[in-house]
Amino acid sequence: MISTEEFREYAHQMVDWMADYYKDIESYPVKSRVHPGDIISHLPLSAPEEPESIDAIFADFKKLILPGMAHWQSPGWMAYFPANSSYPSVLAEMLTSTLGAQCMLWETSPAAAELEERMMDWLKQAMGLPEHFTGVIQDTASTATLCALISAREMRSCFTINQHGFDPQNKYRIYCSAEAHSSVDKAVRIAGFGHNNLVKIPVDETLAMIPGKLDDAVREDIYRGFTPLAVIATLGTTGTMAIDPLKTIASITQLHNLWLHVDAAFAGSATILPEWRRIIEGLEYADSYVFNPHKWLFTNFDLSAYYVKERDILIRTFSILPEYLKTKVDQQVKNYRDWGIPLGRRFRALKLWFVLRNFGLEGIREIFRQQIRNIRDLAEKMESDPSLEILAPVNLNMICFRFNPGNIREKDLNDLNDRILRQVNAGGKIFLTHTKINGKYTIRLIAGQTSTKKRHLDQAWELLKQAAKSEMKHD
Amino acid sequence: MISTEEFREYAHQMVDWMADYYKDIESYPVKSRVHPGDIISHLPLSAPEEPESIDAIFADFKKLILPGMAHWQSPGWMAYFPANSSYPSVLAEMLTSTLGAQCMLWETSPAAAELEERMMDWLKQAMGLPEHFTGVIQDTASTATLCALISAREMRSCFTINQHGFDPQNKYRIYCSAEAHSSVDKAVRIAGFGHNNLVKIPVDETLAMIPGKLDDAVREDIYRGFTPLAVIATLGTTGTMAIDPLKTIASITQLHNLWLHVDAAFAGSATILPEWRRIIEGLEYADSYVFNPHKWLFTNFDLSAYYVKERDILIRTFSILPEYLKTKVDQQVKNYRDWGIPLGRRFRALKLWFVLRNFGLEGIREIFRQQIRNIRDLAEKMESDPSLEILAPVNLNMICFRFNPGNIREKDLNDLNDRILRQVNAGGKIFLTHTKINGKYTIRLIAGQTSTKKRHLDQAWELLKQAAKSEMKHD
Repeated sequence: MISTEEFREYAHQMVDWMADYYKDIESYPVKSRVHPGDIISHLPLSAPEEPESIDAIFADFKKLILPGMAHWQSPGWMAYFPANSSYPSVLAEMLTSTLGAQCMLWETSPAAAELEERMMDWLKQAMGLPEHFTGVIQDTASTATLCALISAREMRSCFTINQHGFDPQNKYRIYCSAEAHSSVDKAVRIAGFGHNNLVKIPVDETLAMIPGKLDDAVREDIYRGFTPLAVIATLGTTGTMAIDPLKTIASITQLHNLWLHVDAAFAGSATILPEWRRIIEGLEYADSYVFNPHKWLFTNFDLSAYYVKERDILIRTFSILPEYLKTKVDQQVKNYRDWGIPLGRRFRALKLWFVLRNFGLEGIREIFRQQIRNIRDLAEKMESDPSLEILAPVNLNMICFRFNPGNIREKDLNDLNDRILRQVNAGGKIFLTHTKINGKYTIRLIAGQTSTKKRHLDQAWELLKQAAKSEMKHD
Repeated sequence: MISTEEFREYAHQMVDWMADYYKDIESYPVKSRVHPGDIISHLPLSAPEEPESIDAIFADFKKLILPGMAHWQSPGWMAYFPANSSYPSVLAEMLTSTLGAQCMLWETSPAAAELEERMMDWLKQAMGLPEHFTGVIQDTASTATLCALISAREMRSCFTINQHGFDPQNKYRIYCSAEAHSSVDKAVRIAGFGHNNLVKIPVDETLAMIPGKLDDAVREDIYRGFTPLAVIATLGTTGTMAIDPLKTIASITQLHNLWLHVDAAFAGSATILPEWRRIIEGLEYADSYVFNPHKWLFTNFDLSAYYVKERDILIRTFSILPEYLKTKVDQQVKNYRDWGIPLGRRFRALKLWFVLRNFGLEGIREIFRQQIRNIRDLAEKMESDPSLEILAPVNLNMICFRFNPGNIREKDLNDLNDRILRQVNAGGKIFLTHTKINGKYTIRLIAGQTSTKKRHLDQAWELLKQAAKSEMKHD
């Protein structure tokens, strides 16, 4: 291995590359142009027996790896949901990797445990979450949703499934909207409920859950002898950023005594804006809540903020205490290993501390408001274009649309829009992805990357119009 | 947020701090001396509204956070299992956090997917794992073991539990030794089997599973109408580094058609040494295998290497494909989101690439052999000390022992050794933890940190003898 002084020298080299990368990021094609197998075919079949220099490895990184990366930190990233980084976050990650602490217990890193507790309180206040919530960092919303469903399972079964396994008397049912994230489907399977017991509630024309249909489904299930267990409400669906009516859903979960989990993975960050707090009305009735600072809060992936109403349920569901993990202070501290699935935990709170302090809450609000305004401006332009249809309500910083010149049969529109999307992405300036709404191929455009500004949206609009024009000509 | 050039400047400052930290790491007390509440009481109750400078945040990091960290990268870290970093690994983590890629799909970062595939092949060869294994990176061994049990559940139930939930006809049983890691207990609960259906098989005097007892337990369960499902064999238990006899266990799992999962979280790295390959004899019969490069392969936490015999079972167990995740190349590439629990994935393969190339396999073997030799030398010294008992076979780089001057009642020995451990840890030069063996309080000493050398073990031995002397005087 290299010496400490060699490490210093190489790390300085990396830093210059890192700063240059951000400076020049718009010169990289956002979506990688490599084809399957292009990268792996250049990688040796075996690890080297003898040491290789950092110079050689770093040169290969630039030559082989970099062209095969999608550039998530480019302002042209308008695909999926963003996974935002930012300068203060990267600085913190440098320290985290240097400390290399494994933060499973308070004793293995007291500062990490206590900073995590305080950061979860900072976020709770900043986002206007109910005072009685307790927070813990999870890796992703998928894991948080799994934790929620297992907690619900255990609370309802008086912790007997953890102890004895499933009781055939109780056929539990879980409810979410037809637009909920696939992680709900996955969690329902992992936790042993079975996918057939996940009831997908129909959505209205805004693609939000219809609470009346939820109530109907629960009542019917009770009548049929099922045990309704939990509802997952989504704030900001992945497909179209639809927002389930939380308050009405909460009244139904209260009525039937169901666990209410709220998945606000992307949209949750928006409640830092008082004008967006309305989407969490009713959250005080929720049993668990998750949103991802790694999506839209400038904090490196991975960092999900998971909040629960009763932390004792969470801890009782997941705690295990073998002798080798006992410490003298177990009664006085928070040992976050008992607050989720994996035992081992990285020091994630540090980057959140750097981000919240260096941006300041007001700094974050400013960027959010600008991004939301930029998207509304773009939506207005789109609305005035007769060859374009907006296919879902424009919420926050996302638009769902398709080109429809009017003279093309419905069944050919999907193909047209797929070609437009591919042409735009091939250009490398921006990267968009798609979804389907009622069978219609829908282009999603999300402007939430840390550095996405108005000019990037203007550029996106020009590129889309050009691509549409050239593809429509072919038809 | 700061500008790119300010980022460059601060990142250079961080680098100098990082190199200095490693240079001076032995001057920090390995185990933090803070008390519960010391850190959080200095953290403001709310996030700042206005931006704060990186200077201010970094100063607070040094003043408030650093004294509250346990220094996992200190050569005096002899506690738990190590979570090793190394210079090439930290350099790679700097790049990873800068790219900030979310590697859920091939398309969201082709190079990450293809590098991961090749790195898992490199490790497979380097460690002498069966050729037919396919690897994937998981965050931790806890998660990998959970994946294994869910895969076993689905294969055995013909994927019907994923679909319909548990069938009361089948009461599945899982088997592991009484010394297996607590993550097995946790996974059995999460997957819905119930803790009562985890059968703990007795261990022999080396604290390894007694295969005959496993066979008895399986036969008895079959007789009683249970459905034996899976066995977890442990190579290198957390308590004492005991090694279950894999080959004999495999013959039993073959006989009864049980899923065999092998948890080699720590000891798995040792098979890079041909002289330690014997511990994985029989691995060709295993259905799944996990070991942690983040423990003893100089690669920053988190990075677990999970291998399976039949990748189709893994993928079928965990795959979900909503419209917004479909890509044109799904049939030609590996989309690792379907190979585990969370959807989102960091670019973890990069640090492994940096480590394996910069150390070289031969470089890693040299360090391992030296650490094993150092521990054997220390064990010899301990054996010749009449006031000390070694309580478990010395495997790899761990010793389990207690002081026993001979004139103290058995029941007071636990208290004596607890006091010795606390005194040594309070000194700050080294950090050790404990376990219990047959009720005996046992001090664990593991020399596996990247930079732990002979002199650190010599120092540890002197400190232990001093502490023992002073504590025995008090009795």
